[in-house]
Amino acid sequence: MLERINNPNDIKKLTLKEKKILAYEIREFLIDNVSKTGGHLASNLGVVELTIALLSCFDFDNDKVVFDVGHQSYVYKILTGRKNNFSKLRKYKGLRGFPYKKESKYDFFETGHSSTSISACLGLARARDIKKDKYNIISVIGDGSISSGESLEAINDLGFNKTKMIIILNDNGMSISSNVGGISSYLSRISINTKYLKVKNKIKHCLDGTKYGSVPVKYLSRIKDGLRTFLVPSKYFETMGLTYIGPVDGHDIKLLSKVLNQAKKLDKPIIIHAVTKKGKGYPFAEANPDLYHAVSPFDKEKGIVVTQKETYSSVFGKTMIDLASKNDKLVAITAAMKDGVGLNEFFLKYPSRSFDVGICEEHATTFTGGLASGGMIPVFAVYSTFLQRGFDQLLHDICMQNISAVFAIDRSGLVGSDGETHQGIFDLSYLSLMPNITIISPKCLSDLPKLLEWSIKSKKIVALRYPRGGDEIDLPQIKEVKYGKWEIVKQGNGVAILAVGKMVQKAVVANEKYNLNATIINATFIKPLDEELLLKLISEKYNILTIEDNVINGGFGSNVTIFLAKNNFCGIIRSMGFCDRFIEQGSVEELFNQEGLNSENIKNMVLELHRGRKYGKRKKGNRKN
Amino acid sequence: MLERINNPNDIKKLTLKEKKILAYEIREFLIDNVSKTGGHLASNLGVVELTIALLSCFDFDNDKVVFDVGHQSYVYKILTGRKNNFSKLRKYKGLRGFPYKKESKYDFFETGHSSTSISACLGLARARDIKKDKYNIISVIGDGSISSGESLEAINDLGFNKTKMIIILNDNGMSISSNVGGISSYLSRISINTKYLKVKNKIKHCLDGTKYGSVPVKYLSRIKDGLRTFLVPSKYFETMGLTYIGPVDGHDIKLLSKVLNQAKKLDKPIIIHAVTKKGKGYPFAEANPDLYHAVSPFDKEKGIVVTQKETYSSVFGKTMIDLASKNDKLVAITAAMKDGVGLNEFFLKYPSRSFDVGICEEHATTFTGGLASGGMIPVFAVYSTFLQRGFDQLLHDICMQNISAVFAIDRSGLVGSDGETHQGIFDLSYLSLMPNITIISPKCLSDLPKLLEWSIKSKKIVALRYPRGGDEIDLPQIKEVKYGKWEIVKQGNGVAILAVGKMVQKAVVANEKYNLNATIINATFIKPLDEELLLKLISEKYNILTIEDNVINGGFGSNVTIFLAKNNFCGIIRSMGFCDRFIEQGSVEELFNQEGLNSENIKNMVLELHRGRKYGKRKKGNRKN
Repeated sequence: MLERINNPNDIKKLTLKEKKILAYEIREFLIDNVSKTGGHLASNLGVVELTIALLSCFDFDNDKVVFDVGHQSYVYKILTGRKNNFSKLRKYKGLRGFPYKKESKYDFFETGHSSTSISACLGLARARDIKKDKYNIISVIGDGSISSGESLEAINDLGFNKTKMIIILNDNGMSISSNVGGISSYLSRISINTKYLKVKNKIKHCLDGTKYGSVPVKYLSRIKDGLRTFLVPSKYFETMGLTYIGPVDGHDIKLLSKVLNQAKKLDKPIIIHAVTKKGKGYPFAEANPDLYHAVSPFDKEKGIVVTQKETYSSVFGKTMIDLASKNDKLVAITAAMKDGVGLNEFFLKYPSRSFDVGICEEHATTFTGGLASGGMIPVFAVYSTFLQRGFDQLLHDICMQNISAVFAIDRSGLVGSDGETHQGIFDLSYLSLMPNITIISPKCLSDLPKLLEWSIKSKKIVALRYPRGGDEIDLPQIKEVKYGKWEIVKQGNGVAILAVGKMVQKAVVANEKYNLNATIINATFIKPLDEELLLKLISEKYNILTIEDNVINGGFGSNVTIFLAKNNFCGIIRSMGFCDRFIEQGSVEELFNQEGLNSENIKNMVLELHRGRKYGKRKKGNRKN
Repeated sequence: MLERINNPNDIKKLTLKEKKILAYEIREFLIDNVSKTGGHLASNLGVVELTIALLSCFDFDNDKVVFDVGHQSYVYKILTGRKNNFSKLRKYKGLRGFPYKKESKYDFFETGHSSTSISACLGLARARDIKKDKYNIISVIGDGSISSGESLEAINDLGFNKTKMIIILNDNGMSISSNVGGISSYLSRISINTKYLKVKNKIKHCLDGTKYGSVPVKYLSRIKDGLRTFLVPSKYFETMGLTYIGPVDGHDIKLLSKVLNQAKKLDKPIIIHAVTKKGKGYPFAEANPDLYHAVSPFDKEKGIVVTQKETYSSVFGKTMIDLASKNDKLVAITAAMKDGVGLNEFFLKYPSRSFDVGICEEHATTFTGGLASGGMIPVFAVYSTFLQRGFDQLLHDICMQNISAVFAIDRSGLVGSDGETHQGIFDLSYLSLMPNITIISPKCLSDLPKLLEWSIKSKKIVALRYPRGGDEIDLPQIKEVKYGKWEIVKQGNGVAILAVGKMVQKAVVANEKYNLNATIINATFIKPLDEELLLKLISEKYNILTIEDNVINGGFGSNVTIFLAKNNFCGIIRSMGFCDRFIEQGSVEELFNQEGLNSENIKNMVLELHRGRKYGKRKKGNRKN
């Protein structure tokens, strides 16, 4: 069936039975491809029927759909002419794992971070109404994303102004890890309703018995009175001013199509509550949807074999447990990323000292400040790219009041195949501008426990930044962590490389490979700078190279340059880092090469600095140039 | 009565009648003082009885209260030992206009930006519970602030986890301008309830007849069945998992005290919905609470006389109307700051092209992106300090997708008496790190219309930044706005001053006053830099001084320095701007002086650069130093 779908309108020619077969084929396609390439699996298996129904009912040459977060848009990509590109899914220069405008006219608004879709759709809808255009606008949003602040702000606006648009609440009962919060509690209360449970059991039953789960053939849930199927009414969304429809079985194409066709006729804001199963049709994923959320390549017959590779996240998690056993004030906070940041075991071991607030980085950040003000030592572990959501709170609530708290910033620098929406390449810049903050980074895995221990004892605001994954090479552990002091990793001559975090490893590798004889300094403290050491470098007439996995603008190299300029540095300063642009998907190494952060370029830079135009020429007494 | 209150527990000794007299005296005190010093008047007049009731029922040597936004904490300050400091309210080194920990142990958490209090209180409450302490925690939050994303995230967490704390919803039916959104609509539906209206009319009636309004003597609203007074039940908060009490008359000390005393006994999250009148007791302020929200000194007998001073905000508003008449794609967005940003008239003239989304900068920013994606030319006018809330959305939704939109950033630089929470001194840094953005600033009022017109025609992402108030001196209007090109305001020799926005005026003043003979350049484009002109300055052996009203870290001077370093600049570069710290309250001129951005220091810097250590010495062939 799949080969017959070459543009989105082809699906409209299929019978219901054919659509069901198509759903089956799409699941096989997804499991087959994603097990080879890696990517987001469970969430896409959950939206197969929903996406088929969307394409059956709407005309996306005019209508617009925005997938919130966007990693559940694979089925939509398959059905809008991109199925042949899946062998390069999330690869360098390949098909994006998120909606991407340059890839297709059917991707109308890009997503990646959660909870933006309702705001974006509402903007589109208001523009449509001003222009007196007529088309449908749909946000597809999960139950985790809908409880984040921006979504609630947008729903508030939508419900008050009664703008025509459709929200499809894709309720699979979990965001990236498990859902938390009053709204989720409210949504799950719906599930307790017995009538609904019956439906759910039937759905579950249908999945048994075939290779990856059977073609769904019958459901009990039916629309009884035209539009609205209230198994239970939804006070929450109605209080907010939306017309609520649901819950409906999100795997019933016929039912979904009926609801969607009705909804598009209504001239007001509608929320359709579709209940789906994450991982549906692939028993491994159904049994463990968290594990199958974002996967590396795996054997589709055997499922994922979990290996315990040591990463910055896992070392962080272990150290937290260790430190918590010695200090009962230590508490941990996550914003729906318990697994990702390595805190699973901590949460099991110290439940009363663990807080998962859902996809709510704003709340998480101020909440961290509240915990600290109440006498705790809070550690908020968060991905670099997501802490951007707590920017104002970090600046206004934490830094302004100078409240001691630790921000463990995971996935800093390049993250790889998630691409531009998830790279952690801005944090050194957006953190450096904040007064009262201390920014540190381990040069290797073995530094992390020492830095974390120092952080929680420091009574300071500490941003502890580390990358995704593990190390490239082994380096000796830092001897002593001392406020504002850097570590000389290797003594050389003439050129000093000041490197941030794991970039020290790149410096060491290049230095050894090409015999560069540079002095390599681990800038453990990115803020404050080690001014004493910098002044020494100036007086010893060093030329300087800084290396960071962050944009140059406002980052480490930038702050070193300003300090040098202020102190009448006469040598050459060069900064390696990322240019002023977003960085696409690819393997981390491919991207480092693309951006020029590799041994070859470090060598070239250091050799240029050894030749030393400014110092060098002056030494020779040549003042002409 | 007021003279008897010297610490917060003194209030507990008063009879109800005495408390009512106290309320009367506090209102006189507020009107008397704030009319002399300026400050937030209407909101404080609205919480007199509420604050008296809080201090009557709680012991703030143990219990904690956090006032959301914090500008309504004057009454609390008066009653917690700070009444004698009101003559220096919001003055340099004087009493803060917001909660301030260094000022009093009764200020436990600082606020300024909206919607942080529930998160902070929840953090405190969880810390209390871990330590098995017993005290009460109260958030006092307005109906505008409660509908912002962070509040909703926190309520979600609170309701799900059933933590013991009290939210007092101070519902006066308006945030800074008027309230918008579904929640506000829901809250105002309550007001339509006739029983409630009767209460409201009675309250209103009580105010007539005395100097500033009479002592409130009787109310009709009574708690009938112990704890809960449902005039109408609140589905919304109950759906979120909170126990809702209300609405209660927020000016009835006895009723409020009864409710608060009951609430503190309950071991769960409570929301008390108190209805208050902004400006209560001062007829001028009751009639026009927006005007009396934040006031400059005025004659208390005559009320505020509105003068039409030309400011950047007013010029912006006028220009928007002018441009909208020529371009029907132009639309305006505000986040509850219609008055402040000068868009009042625009909203009246173009209602269908005007969007006030409430205190929701996250939603507003992505919504702006949606409008642009739908074919509009959106201008989101927002205070610099509040755009911090939309940081991730600006970076992730606007810049990443390179969606053309204009961000009119008002109150950039120093704002004066609002102090550290409101200074707009970080925007050049947090904007400069964003790829694809163009940052521009008018050097004077007359530049603003030309820059705004250029912005909306540019098809770029433009951050148009300008300060509070008007000009210091008149300067000739910029001749031509050309992408990435700076304007030479005055040709001098040897030293170039590159100044941002209104700082050009400071440079011109100093240059003339002290005959500095500097070349003065208006860096119209802060991003991208005018690299051609910079290279010319290098080749002409200029020493360079940058001036900006932003922190040095990551700002304009920082980016100029990096460019110069990269291009082997051998001269001296100095940057004037703000140091790495928060800047307190005071008049803008006092603060510029404190921070060293004044004529005297510009003179000293320029003279140092004229003496020119590096270029100068080299010219003389002196290579020793």
